[in-house]
Amino acid sequence: MTVVDAFDWGLLEPAGAAAQGTGDDTVLTAMVETEAALVAAWDDLDGVASSVSFDSGALDRGRLVARARTDGVPIVALVEQLREQAGTHADRVHRGATSQDIVDTALMLVSRDALAAARGRLTAAAGELAARAREARSTPLQARTLTQPAEPTTFGALLAGWLDVVISAGQALDAVRYPVQLGGAVGTGAAVLRSGRSLDVLDALRASLAGRLALDNPGRAWHTDRAPALAVAGAAAQVAAAGGRIGRDLALAARDGYLRPATGGASSAMPHKKNPVDAVLLTANGLRAPGLLATLHTAALSYDARPAGEWHAEWQAWRGLLRLASENAVVLAHAVPDATIVASDVPRPESMDAAALAAAEHAVDAVLARHERTATL
Amino acid sequence: MTVVDAFDWGLLEPAGAAAQGTGDDTVLTAMVETEAALVAAWDDLDGVASSVSFDSGALDRGRLVARARTDGVPIVALVEQLREQAGTHADRVHRGATSQDIVDTALMLVSRDALAAARGRLTAAAGELAARAREARSTPLQARTLTQPAEPTTFGALLAGWLDVVISAGQALDAVRYPVQLGGAVGTGAAVLRSGRSLDVLDALRASLAGRLALDNPGRAWHTDRAPALAVAGAAAQVAAAGGRIGRDLALAARDGYLRPATGGASSAMPHKKNPVDAVLLTANGLRAPGLLATLHTAALSYDARPAGEWHAEWQAWRGLLRLASENAVVLAHAVPDATIVASDVPRPESMDAAALAAAEHAVDAVLARHERTATL
Amino acid sequence: MTVVDAFDWGLLEPAGAAAQGTGDDTVLTAMVETEAALVAAWDDLDGVASSVSFDSGALDRGRLVARARTDGVPIVALVEQLREQAGTHADRVHRGATSQDIVDTALMLVSRDALAAARGRLTAAAGELAARAREARSTPLQARTLTQPAEPTTFGALLAGWLDVVISAGQALDAVRYPVQLGGAVGTGAAVLRSGRSLDVLDALRASLAGRLALDNPGRAWHTDRAPALAVAGAAAQVAAAGGRIGRDLALAARDGYLRPATGGASSAMPHKKNPVDAVLLTANGLRAPGLLATLHTAALSYDARPAGEWHAEWQAWRGLLRLASENAVVLAHAVPDATIVASDVPRPESMDAAALAAAEHAVDAVLARHERTATL
Amino acid sequence: MTVVDAFDWGLLEPAGAAAQGTGDDTVLTAMVETEAALVAAWDDLDGVASSVSFDSGALDRGRLVARARTDGVPIVALVEQLREQAGTHADRVHRGATSQDIVDTALMLVSRDALAAARGRLTAAAGELAARAREARSTPLQARTLTQPAEPTTFGALLAGWLDVVISAGQALDAVRYPVQLGGAVGTGAAVLRSGRSLDVLDALRASLAGRLALDNPGRAWHTDRAPALAVAGAAAQVAAAGGRIGRDLALAARDGYLRPATGGASSAMPHKKNPVDAVLLTANGLRAPGLLATLHTAALSYDARPAGEWHAEWQAWRGLLRLASENAVVLAHAVPDATIVASDVPRPESMDAAALAAAEHAVDAVLARHERTATL
Repeated sequence: MTVVDAFDWGLLEPAGAAAQGTGDDTVLTAMVETEAALVAAWDDLDGVASSVSFDSGALDRGRLVARARTDGVPIVALVEQLREQAGTHADRVHRGATSQDIVDTALMLVSRDALAAARGRLTAAAGELAARAREARSTPLQARTLTQPAEPTTFGALLAGWLDVVISAGQALDAVRYPVQLGGAVGTGAAVLRSGRSLDVLDALRASLAGRLALDNPGRAWHTDRAPALAVAGAAAQVAAAGGRIGRDLALAARDGYLRPATGGASSAMPHKKNPVDAVLLTANGLRAPGLLATLHTAALSYDARPAGEWHAEWQAWRGLLRLASENAVVLAHAVPDATIVASDVPRPESMDAAALAAAEHAVDAVLARHERTATL
Repeated sequence: MTVVDAFDWGLLEPAGAAAQGTGDDTVLTAMVETEAALVAAWDDLDGVASSVSFDSGALDRGRLVARARTDGVPIVALVEQLREQAGTHADRVHRGATSQDIVDTALMLVSRDALAAARGRLTAAAGELAARAREARSTPLQARTLTQPAEPTTFGALLAGWLDVVISAGQALDAVRYPVQLGGAVGTGAAVLRSGRSLDVLDALRASLAGRLALDNPGRAWHTDRAPALAVAGAAAQVAAAGGRIGRDLALAARDGYLRPATGGASSAMPHKKNPVDAVLLTANGLRAPGLLATLHTAALSYDARPAGEWHAEWQAWRGLLRLASENAVVLAHAVPDATIVASDVPRPESMDAAALAAAEHAVDAVLARHERTATL
Repeated sequence: MTVVDAFDWGLLEPAGAAAQGTGDDTVLTAMVETEAALVAAWDDLDGVASSVSFDSGALDRGRLVARARTDGVPIVALVEQLREQAGTHADRVHRGATSQDIVDTALMLVSRDALAAARGRLTAAAGELAARAREARSTPLQARTLTQPAEPTTFGALLAGWLDVVISAGQALDAVRYPVQLGGAVGTGAAVLRSGRSLDVLDALRASLAGRLALDNPGRAWHTDRAPALAVAGAAAQVAAAGGRIGRDLALAARDGYLRPATGGASSAMPHKKNPVDAVLLTANGLRAPGLLATLHTAALSYDARPAGEWHAEWQAWRGLLRLASENAVVLAHAVPDATIVASDVPRPESMDAAALAAAEHAVDAVLARHERTATL
Repeated sequence: MTVVDAFDWGLLEPAGAAAQGTGDDTVLTAMVETEAALVAAWDDLDGVASSVSFDSGALDRGRLVARARTDGVPIVALVEQLREQAGTHADRVHRGATSQDIVDTALMLVSRDALAAARGRLTAAAGELAARAREARSTPLQARTLTQPAEPTTFGALLAGWLDVVISAGQALDAVRYPVQLGGAVGTGAAVLRSGRSLDVLDALRASLAGRLALDNPGRAWHTDRAPALAVAGAAAQVAAAGGRIGRDLALAARDGYLRPATGGASSAMPHKKNPVDAVLLTANGLRAPGLLATLHTAALSYDARPAGEWHAEWQAWRGLLRLASENAVVLAHAVPDATIVASDVPRPESMDAAALAAAEHAVDAVLARHERTATL
């Protein structure tokens, strides 16, 4: 592998355990996978066995970065290098495709994988929360609204509230589709039709590419209809927000003294102190997502057959949202099991009447039922 | 009706034709409708015919505004006034509910109606665009990417691209659910259970309220799981962005000289000038939405049984997104029919080969087919 | 005054006491004041006494709103009505100006006045905070970092921290300049030069307009250099954030039980409850500002001699930031005096050593000294 | 140097030529520099010559990243490693400081250097623009507003408009102060006072640290008054916006055909095509900055002596803004010299009267005078 100077290796991304799945190497691999699938799709259509295979590791990353600056996109230089790797089959590489086909498809592949992993972690977090909510279903808790003591509730109802948010975030992920992008230079696939091919080839090629990459076939190019990107971004932002919402409550539980971090949380100034690090990271990531989502929505104001800047503005914000969602899902999956929550220390209400108790238990049951319904799917 | 000084009546909201459906009077009416439906739901449960009806017009708006400042929410003062109107049945008003139940439900009612109207206008716009795209299916056009001439395409393919965005925005609206909010003081409905009622009453009351208001019954309170609000906001923002994306192309068409505004667009400095006002308003609204969406996502970091500020921060941003979506849907429905697009003036490609033409026509057909599939639903 | 349907009269703007200074009537009055000053500036240059005066109240607001939709800006219709008012001097109205000159100048007038009022309120808040910090200079307090008990401090040091934020926000306001806008159709003032006038008239007119309106003379048009708008917006956002930062601490003080709201804060579900309304409103406004600031920065990507949408996207976001800053300044000026802070209830540290006490007192003194330095200015 | 898996090496940051100055290694070096200066400041105060020096290259980056996850901040692990390097003087490392002192100071160091470099590039860009504006002072150009032909102007006036934006951005940078952060655990410096030191040591230490690092001495800790961070962020965002604003015009010039990129801009689908890459990158970066600025403003809602998430949310957004500003300054410094602007191809107005010409020339002269005034400073 050709070495390139990394500029970000995680120093300022403290929840970064999950960053590997969204790093530049992962994105590059997805780009190469897309180009390889395109060659294979053409081979099928042409009845050719080109046996082209690519080696991501051998790519000159320094050249990719340098050329991204001069070309505005790393794909031109990538295609050159892949053609070198393809040898006599060089002319079969990137046929009918444009840079946006490769970048958009690669980001969809990375999105699908990162959010599938996040989904798994949300499921784990939900399972844990369901168990804890069931246990604490009837443990009295002083509920607060606008910071002040309000009606009594139970600790289980608080935990069920967290579970509710996780279920909703999981449902948001489940609704996302990950379409392949294939439109060629101006989105119509004109180049594909050249050399006397029939119209059918356009759709066949896209279908084949989608099948090989296990992505949705949208039946069209979406170069300037950014709805698919907005859908991914919105769901990822919701996962980040779900983490942030639970992080806020974890922080307050730590402040109130009944949640104790099991590990970590050292302080550079006060070595004896234990900080609620999971709460901090969840909240921080929840606060970082909205700005990136706004960038994606601003960039959706596309024009012509490809705009001069809006599309390029998407990349880092899109990947950033995947990263925040991934990180918050990882932290969520650990936050509740890792924390020592001392139920006996939970702030007690001054009094707990039968109606308040029954209502709280009922609220827990409703969320547990929702959890069972969605977990079965 | 008691007079109150309006502070915003439309001076700085030039696309505001649709603002009526999202104004304070509309929101207030939805709040009153929610309170009325709650009384009726209780009447049913109790087998009582209280015949309470409210008069929105008679409410003292000045008192609502003044009390919103001291209470942090206008509902406390609203309930007082509604109880005065209810006379001997005053104690049946707002039973078991909290301020958030009324505000959230009212915003869902306003959302449902505003976005249903927007949906209708998107359908109209889509119909018009489909007709125009069909007409111009084979009219050669010089496509541009990154501002530069690229492969040739057709004017129909450009229009089909706009249609695609409108269809996607419509689908986003179709996927939105509008749930009723009912949880009482801390989301568990404890107050409802007081006086010896059975557990069933909690769900029955929410179901009845949802039925009367024609909203979804979510089977739970979502006081601190803001997923339903994020879903509405995301779809509304996408409609605003769809308008902005088409506005950008309309502006470029006006710049290129083949789109001429039919009416309006006067200039205060150059009376003879005709500005592409629809393009301007669509774009401006598209640029305004992302910041409001970010506010909703930031406010989703809720905590306790109701947070001290996050929920309050939602109201204007939520309504603002409805307004932008409504306005852009109105403008979209008029922009294409109102504009004079002179097909003969469309920028011609230097040459148009058969493959490029066939590919462009195929792209038009794919979007028209998508339009027919979605229009049938 | 011609009546127009108000769409927003304050229902969803609970901290809206200050909204009057940023409402549409205020903006309209500033527009009229700008046009009047322009007539007067021309009169001076021409040695004419046109005695034109305008009556804002007599303007047909309905026509302004309707024409804003068709023209994209309310100024064309405004100028028509002002010319009617000017009678035989109609031709002296709006001479050499373009819509953007009037809107930008009017927004600067509104900004200057709204932020001057906010500055006054910050000064009052700072005075109150300084007095309280002095009083509580040595009152032990358990400081928290990341929610956990940390080194001991004093309650005075906490209050000095709030004072510090208010001083910084005040300094940010003091650094803002409010320039007049005058550039004519394309920013060069060509129309002014027509009819044989000398070059000097361009600068003389701008200088005269600036002098009459008590705005800065920037010596140029800034139609597409939005730096002056960004400066106003950034400072207003900082005032909103200052309120939000203090609101967070007020909310936690209310949660910890040592801050009690003096008035208001009623709950619709629990009449006995007292909510920390000031804390809620300050925080909510602090959360709402960043999205609007982002809109202004997005809109700063101008082009040509006036862009098709970016400029129009500024208006509501700009005014919105003024409103949030104004509201938070009003609330800040009342929040501390109105709250009952029971010093004896302040969370005590487990132990307080001499060094921690001296350090906290020293921190109070440093902020008080900063306050005196800046208050003298 | 211990190797760590890089997650971002530039694949998705096409304008990343300047990224080196804002990368993790640079930030880490600034952290180490801060710790070294703190040891030296103590040595001075104590009259000790500890001769401690640190080797950034020898730090185990993998351990820093892993511990950032468990501690929520990389400083605890950094201090451990630096203490190992300090040997017998280990106890002199990080004395009286807290994590936030090191991170905030390091980010200020990186900000100062990155923005100083950006300032230099803006100066170069301004010089180039001034020369071009002077050359093209009288070259007729068809100005456009809202996309439509408006009053005639000159090409020089267009270029002067770009120069104006660059001057304003430069002035925004010049107004920024870069203060050192030093407050200890809770911002009061209590730990510093321990062991019988006098009160003077607190201020002396901060002054010494500021002097050694060539940062401002703010005379206070600003742990929870984020005004200094907002000032840096606002100025950096303005530089990014300045690039975006000019990028928009460059793109339109390329669209209109009179600007031709000199190098690069290859297309993966159409090898003969030349894209205006500088325009694309400038615009993309301009579109990315507002969301990050919004994050900083949201994170300014601090609380307690350090909040659980808001501060952590700042780091990547803060660095991101520096990166966008740096990149856009680099691109701006090259965009105008590198582009071939064919003055004879500039869109001509239908007619150009003497007044319009004189007004345009006057507008050029005003900006050139502004440039000379600010360049002399």
